[in-house]
Amino acid sequence: MTDWLTDDEQRAWRGLLHMTAQLNARLARQLQDEHEISIADYDILVRLYEAPEHGLRARDLEASLLWEQSRLSHQLSRMQRRGLVERGDCPSDRRGATFAITDVGRAAIEHAAPGHVAAVRRLFFDHLTPDDVARLDELTGRIISRLS
Amino acid sequence: MTDWLTDDEQRAWRGLLHMTAQLNARLARQLQDEHEISIADYDILVRLYEAPEHGLRARDLEASLLWEQSRLSHQLSRMQRRGLVERGDCPSDRRGATFAITDVGRAAIEHAAPGHVAAVRRLFFDHLTPDDVARLDELTGRIISRLS
Repeated sequence: MTDWLTDDEQRAWRGLLHMTAQLNARLARQLQDEHEISIADYDILVRLYEAPEHGLRARDLEASLLWEQSRLSHQLSRMQRRGLVERGDCPSDRRGATFAITDVGRAAIEHAAPGHVAAVRRLFFDHLTPDDVARLDELTGRIISRLS
Repeated sequence: MTDWLTDDEQRAWRGLLHMTAQLNARLARQLQDEHEISIADYDILVRLYEAPEHGLRARDLEASLLWEQSRLSHQLSRMQRRGLVERGDCPSDRRGATFAITDVGRAAIEHAAPGHVAAVRRLFFDHLTPDDVARLDELTGRIISRLS
């Protein structure tokens, strides 16, 4: 017998999926409209920007983003062509290659971040209490620790 | 001056993104490995399955999934070729076209749903209390109502 979700669980699950899909869609549109970068560009640029030496191995990006390898590979190629990232010394396999943020990429993320953060605040945190934030942090941490 | 996220907010935000990305990746892999359908197939089949008459207009699917029109259009074409959905009477524009689940699609979702729901329970709800579920439902509802 399948242990189906209860009505409460189903509502919470669909709410979570719908909320994150909506937030992603709105944040993606804001980045695209105002900065002509995709949320995928943004996610990669932030990680490279914050990394020591502003670079990461492709396989570490892959582990951090949880993307399929082929998706990441295509995305990085597009970003290379646009001058946002550059590929470092290249070992035998592409997953071992390192990618670094360029000056153009750095300028793009520095330009986009304030508006993006303002949108995250306006769409999400403005409607949460500090207690909500603490509970959300605890809950996500709990789930993530079981997933690893 | 940019009103940057506080450390607590940043941790909660990244936790939310990371948790949902991890859950999606795990659920996608389970569907693909065990049923050879993608999570995109599943999301569309569930909506058609639950719809009155087991069919929906493309534009209603688009609004429900929050996908770009071109992504939905490609996805539906692929699912048509695989016999999972069929296109109904076709008005002038594709967004007005209706799509219905086929017998093959119905068999696919009925076959996949128990394992998918079991994975959602194992990865997520097994680690939540009823109070967590109620708070999550309330929080997602609150955010979604502000986004609409």
